[in-house]
Amino acid sequence: MRRDKMEQNERELIQLEGRNPIAEALAAGRSINKVYILQSARRSHADAALARLAADCKENGAVVTYVTRAVLDSMAATGAHQGIIAEAAPYQYTDLQEILLRCERQNKSPFLILLDHIQDAYNLGSILRIADGAGVDAVIIPQRRSVSLNAAVAKASAGAVEHVPICRVVNLSKTVLDLKDAGFWVYGSAANGKTAYDQANYSGKIALIVGSEGDGISDKLLAHCDFLLTIPLRGKVNSLNAAVAAGIITFEAARQRGIS
Amino acid sequence: MRRDKMEQNERELIQLEGRNPIAEALAAGRSINKVYILQSARRSHADAALARLAADCKENGAVVTYVTRAVLDSMAATGAHQGIIAEAAPYQYTDLQEILLRCERQNKSPFLILLDHIQDAYNLGSILRIADGAGVDAVIIPQRRSVSLNAAVAKASAGAVEHVPICRVVNLSKTVLDLKDAGFWVYGSAANGKTAYDQANYSGKIALIVGSEGDGISDKLLAHCDFLLTIPLRGKVNSLNAAVAAGIITFEAARQRGIS
Repeated sequence: MRRDKMEQNERELIQLEGRNPIAEALAAGRSINKVYILQSARRSHADAALARLAADCKENGAVVTYVTRAVLDSMAATGAHQGIIAEAAPYQYTDLQEILLRCERQNKSPFLILLDHIQDAYNLGSILRIADGAGVDAVIIPQRRSVSLNAAVAKASAGAVEHVPICRVVNLSKTVLDLKDAGFWVYGSAANGKTAYDQANYSGKIALIVGSEGDGISDKLLAHCDFLLTIPLRGKVNSLNAAVAAGIITFEAARQRGIS
Repeated sequence: MRRDKMEQNERELIQLEGRNPIAEALAAGRSINKVYILQSARRSHADAALARLAADCKENGAVVTYVTRAVLDSMAATGAHQGIIAEAAPYQYTDLQEILLRCERQNKSPFLILLDHIQDAYNLGSILRIADGAGVDAVIIPQRRSVSLNAAVAKASAGAVEHVPICRVVNLSKTVLDLKDAGFWVYGSAANGKTAYDQANYSGKIALIVGSEGDGISDKLLAHCDFLLTIPLRGKVNSLNAAVAAGIITFEAARQRGIS
């Protein structure tokens, strides 16, 4: 019963809001079924950029409906639709084995990021941007208890959601053990970590676990980490924002690996 | 006329929402006039933590009013009041000259962050956390066209807003020139920057300018920068989130300066 529900949800369309997320989805070749556009965009001299985006959507087979600002406001989940909302096909998740095989063929040591139940859409979007920028091979999220790839994530990701391979796994803990069996070193960040993030060695096959905003990495996953990293903090607050911390560690790793 | 208005606004109370921001404000000795608390907290066994926070507020002179969840929901600006909203005295800005004198007396080269019209409360809060964690001496914001230090900033800062000295200046451009006259090196990040962030030398008196989310650093300020930094990106998206980029550069600087 529950399984049927999940499969049904996955076939459902997702809503994209704002100009950049929709332009990025088009550029990535994602199918857009319907698009709702501010009626003033009909007169192309009023807002040339919006009129152009409407034409691009139409050319790619979308049904265009012109609506009032009030209608868009009532549809928007992010509060910033910028005059356009689209119904698009859901994101295609990538199979983790496929990523690992691809890296093997390219003779490349994979760099993976695993997200342990990130709840905040803004942070997930920011982390996808980090992964894109640092040349991370895939971001792995658990199937349940994470924020879904919705309009707010797409917006915060500035298009990265269209470019970074995202793998969804049933059991994050099992995936970590499988990766260790496959020769990966596993890194997690923890307030009481023993290794300063800039003193760790990030060469080879690596997987970085990023914990959730409130609780950090779950104990079960912490126990699987080969290295517990810490970002030394000098102030009175004992943590950084989850995406900021992920950015600092990921770019240090990328710097060492020569891919940044 | 306008000046009167501004001064009046500055005397106005600000609203804090949620347990941590209010607990941090109390710990920092900030005056809280009134506090609205979920009525169920009267029975301390129902929510001991909230009842304790209510008692702390009372002890510090706040008038406590018990209200329904519906009242709190209607008052909240952040959407996450966690059963408590307070009216607190506004943040005390610090005078930049005072910070510079203090560093001089401590024989310390200051590390300043200047925010060029950051609009997003979440990013401002995250940057205050970065500044706190990296031992930055002060964050400088322009008096106008920035997000104010409201409940959302306080929440995103996880208490850092109570600890990091924040200076407000009328003219950011003039402040940068004054700092250069005082021997500061000025760094800005720009997509077309010539210096990789990890190749720059961050010793001495330094000021890092962080640009706004959409537009980056204004041309006027870019022209004042001694070093235009870039974070090399390998992906398809051409920028990182403003707070993430600020975190990567700030912690690289802190690392080099030996304060992280």
